[in-house]
Amino acid sequence: MSNPLFSDRHVDFLLREVLDLPGLLALPAFVEHSEETCAMYMDACRKVARQVLLPSYGPVDAAAPGLEAGGQVRLHRDMHEAHRTLVELGVLTAARPEAVGGTGLPMLATAASHAYLMAGNLAAYALEGLTTGAARLIESFGDDDLRARFMRKMYDGEWTGTMALTEPQAGSSLSDVATKATPAADGTFRISGTKVFISGGAHDVAENIIHLTLARIEGAPAGIKGVSLFAVPAKREVNGKLVDNDVLCSSVFHKVGWRGLPSVQLSFGDRGECHGWLVGAPHQGIKYMFQMMNEARLMVGLNAVASASVAFHAAIAYAQDRPQGRPLTAKDPTTPQIPIIEHADVRRMLLRQKAIVEGGLALLLECARLTDLSEHHPDPAERKAAFLLLDLLTPIAKTFPAEYGFEANTLAIQIHGGYGYTSEYPVEAWWRDQKLNTIHEGTSGIQGLDLLGRKMVAEGGAGLRDLAGRVTATLAKASQAGLPATLTEPLSAALQAWLQASATLGAKGATGDVDGMLRHSADYMSLASVTVVGWMWLRQAVAATNATDRDLAQGVDAAARYWMATEATKAPALAARIASGEDSYAALDPAWL
Amino acid sequence: MSNPLFSDRHVDFLLREVLDLPGLLALPAFVEHSEETCAMYMDACRKVARQVLLPSYGPVDAAAPGLEAGGQVRLHRDMHEAHRTLVELGVLTAARPEAVGGTGLPMLATAASHAYLMAGNLAAYALEGLTTGAARLIESFGDDDLRARFMRKMYDGEWTGTMALTEPQAGSSLSDVATKATPAADGTFRISGTKVFISGGAHDVAENIIHLTLARIEGAPAGIKGVSLFAVPAKREVNGKLVDNDVLCSSVFHKVGWRGLPSVQLSFGDRGECHGWLVGAPHQGIKYMFQMMNEARLMVGLNAVASASVAFHAAIAYAQDRPQGRPLTAKDPTTPQIPIIEHADVRRMLLRQKAIVEGGLALLLECARLTDLSEHHPDPAERKAAFLLLDLLTPIAKTFPAEYGFEANTLAIQIHGGYGYTSEYPVEAWWRDQKLNTIHEGTSGIQGLDLLGRKMVAEGGAGLRDLAGRVTATLAKASQAGLPATLTEPLSAALQAWLQASATLGAKGATGDVDGMLRHSADYMSLASVTVVGWMWLRQAVAATNATDRDLAQGVDAAARYWMATEATKAPALAARIASGEDSYAALDPAWL
Repeated sequence: MSNPLFSDRHVDFLLREVLDLPGLLALPAFVEHSEETCAMYMDACRKVARQVLLPSYGPVDAAAPGLEAGGQVRLHRDMHEAHRTLVELGVLTAARPEAVGGTGLPMLATAASHAYLMAGNLAAYALEGLTTGAARLIESFGDDDLRARFMRKMYDGEWTGTMALTEPQAGSSLSDVATKATPAADGTFRISGTKVFISGGAHDVAENIIHLTLARIEGAPAGIKGVSLFAVPAKREVNGKLVDNDVLCSSVFHKVGWRGLPSVQLSFGDRGECHGWLVGAPHQGIKYMFQMMNEARLMVGLNAVASASVAFHAAIAYAQDRPQGRPLTAKDPTTPQIPIIEHADVRRMLLRQKAIVEGGLALLLECARLTDLSEHHPDPAERKAAFLLLDLLTPIAKTFPAEYGFEANTLAIQIHGGYGYTSEYPVEAWWRDQKLNTIHEGTSGIQGLDLLGRKMVAEGGAGLRDLAGRVTATLAKASQAGLPATLTEPLSAALQAWLQASATLGAKGATGDVDGMLRHSADYMSLASVTVVGWMWLRQAVAATNATDRDLAQGVDAAARYWMATEATKAPALAARIASGEDSYAALDPAWL
Repeated sequence: MSNPLFSDRHVDFLLREVLDLPGLLALPAFVEHSEETCAMYMDACRKVARQVLLPSYGPVDAAAPGLEAGGQVRLHRDMHEAHRTLVELGVLTAARPEAVGGTGLPMLATAASHAYLMAGNLAAYALEGLTTGAARLIESFGDDDLRARFMRKMYDGEWTGTMALTEPQAGSSLSDVATKATPAADGTFRISGTKVFISGGAHDVAENIIHLTLARIEGAPAGIKGVSLFAVPAKREVNGKLVDNDVLCSSVFHKVGWRGLPSVQLSFGDRGECHGWLVGAPHQGIKYMFQMMNEARLMVGLNAVASASVAFHAAIAYAQDRPQGRPLTAKDPTTPQIPIIEHADVRRMLLRQKAIVEGGLALLLECARLTDLSEHHPDPAERKAAFLLLDLLTPIAKTFPAEYGFEANTLAIQIHGGYGYTSEYPVEAWWRDQKLNTIHEGTSGIQGLDLLGRKMVAEGGAGLRDLAGRVTATLAKASQAGLPATLTEPLSAALQAWLQASATLGAKGATGDVDGMLRHSADYMSLASVTVVGWMWLRQAVAATNATDRDLAQGVDAAARYWMATEATKAPALAARIASGEDSYAALDPAWL
């Protein structure tokens, strides 16, 4: 199976022509780097993704690990090899500063490079992504002792990490976390409780696993204000040796996808001997964890783009290879059949996938660029603006690729016909993987509430105003570049519809009708998504007017036209429904079902 | 696991209040039947579906059969029991006339009853559905010898049947069927060729399988005009004994869903000893098969409704049982959590599922009613009108539940959160089952071409004109009944949009721009779907104004309002896109991807 995973020319176009990687590299923070160093890392990632990860995907998916005696979980040998290769490649610290042993690449270049790794083998990459995210929490909020005790070995790839938030009675509701932390005489805590759906929570790829765990210190306030963050290792060091830390894997979930990476239930402290180290200050766990969650949400968005992209490229290849049927006007059944890519409806499905995959990638890389600017721009005002815009875009960048990406994966199966419904082709496996992305790291429903209830109104709507200004500037550039009204008018109308809906709903919230405001959060998310991705496509269309690669430019133009005609045009009806206060579901009595 | 599969009160409401089963029973053809006999059959089906089929669903899904030595395929023992039970229940001939040993129930009552069986265990029912469809072909087009030789034992449940159309090089393109039929001295034919994706093509539930097979008689014209229909038994009778008929199961496809019913590859005549019996006249195979395909398409539509319905009811139960989070305005984290059905976005997902499931069921049962009228109405003009309308609705009734039903199944997973992504709950299995329905019996793309290129223009558009008249009559009734404009105006606008798009595209086709016409077939299908299902909901809303069950009536009203506000309002933008001649995908050059 040969698969490019992403279109190299499109990724390069995004980095250089659309998202201005050269401009980013001119910032003082990236003085050690250049387009050349970024390209070297990109090349190395592409090679590993295509030559090591992708070939391992099928075998790993086909042999999901189970629970063995003593809570043991053994991963497929290809997961072991992938771990060694990815650590050697330097994925754990590619975007971390040199001060903690990192390479210090811009997040923009890192994310674009890692997207290939995710597309090659999602489960294999996720183990590293979780580890670097967990280590990052300690880097940000832990003291020198914790950094030395845990972070260093995690960044080195000797140990891995998890985020241990969810409990059986507290999935989306973190204020109900019940895991307990009891202070011990040695300054650490004794942890007890049960966590579920912990990805990478048990395996044999590394000798130790550090669980970044939410728990409640005895006597802490109820709700999210009483939740603290702990580093809880599977094994703790005693006299220079690793001993069991009373963290038991009590079951492995049988998941639909992501089958290479076990998701497990963990019992902490069944014997009362589970030591945990407080990270940062007590009762600040949710605030700290939000850093990881925001990064994790962007990682999920990029995962979703990657799973959709690898399937998109498989669908292109299949559509070009598979002969079936003849042109609609052909009358002679003795003429040869044509490849299905010649059929308009197959092209529609391919262009829709392209619009979703490459529009989604542009959005996630824009978020990576904003991450860089929010951390490294010398001007504090620019940093703050980038942060607010990133904060606004994060729930969209998590949800759009998960929801639309799932549709793209479904279309890839459809193009494969009956064969796509069998395990003879990998499209069904990527489709199974994709489904998780609307659920984990905050469901689409939670993201909608976050976007409308928090991000839209943050700082008096500053992020949305900034975004509107940027979209308007792109519209002006598009007109200057001579792009047709079919590309600009639908986006302009969508932006107005979004702003109008924001005003309508914001006014409801301001007058105390919070339920009336938030019951339209799903419509609001759709409205934001078609607009933001429309902006991504118009930015690409503007940049493509200068592109020397005419195939690339025509592809961008076709996808942009498709998006504007098919998706951006949905905005007015969405805004009208929001304005009408439609309440059929909110008013629903369960007895009516 | 307790699950009603469908809402009994809603099914009864559809039959009696919306689709006028009593009026149908007044036709002379149904003189032997009454509401009581229909209700008895319904009760028996509900009981089997809930007590026998549903408990077997999980075990059967978990143990998909494989290929054993000698081409043997052994089904799960629960599939054996289900077969015996369904045969005893009389499903094979419930709607067949007494002349062939049937019960002669109206298709309307039969389809509503069998929907429960499909929802209980899709694979188990499908074996019977395929058998009755195959036997029906022999009943319609075979002579007395073939009826005695094959049909009788199929209707008795001793033997089962399949439809063997697809070949590796001819999936959607039946004109490329290459299986050969060579005349033999005894009046039969020797069949040779390979068929793929033959559902129920090999199993050990019955002693023989009759494959209704498309093949080409030596010297036949190329294309679909040279394809004939044959009955090809797995075993043929020689001197009163069954002997091997040289039909080898050479592989079993590893499918994503429908795992209880094997889909296999069959090699006919490897040893030159495969006897086939011509059904009807030579070269008429496609015409004959279309009868079965149209029935099969309606069966797929009902399968899709059933898979969505059982998941919908599981989601209702889960949403009522699962506590998570608090009201949006609650500030006190020590108050108990509320069931997730209290959250507006969960209600949205449930009401959307209801609108899809029950709107889809209404459409499929309307098609069943039209089947009855087209076959049994005493007035030939009424029969013809019913046939034309049924013909128009069939591709919609196949595609809408498959496409939207898949979305409903996805929402059922979403409501289950992380648990829905595991095999601990059955929602993921129904979701896997559902995916096939957009692919088999003609992909959604093929259905779109059929609707727009054949059905819309058939008899000068008579079916569409008739439908428009019926929708308009329902709109008038709704106004008379005092229903609000929020229920009627979106449907009225959708109907106008559909008619306008039909005129636009019909004119393109009439002037020879067939490609320009048909490249909008997917949009056209969407437009037809939101309108037709809107009609179903308005008919239900009108009927519900008289309903004594107020919970039922309010549920119908909520779903109708939801559909009109959310789906019917999509019609104008779809029609505008069609009118614009948008061609981004049709103009796509593969090099641009």
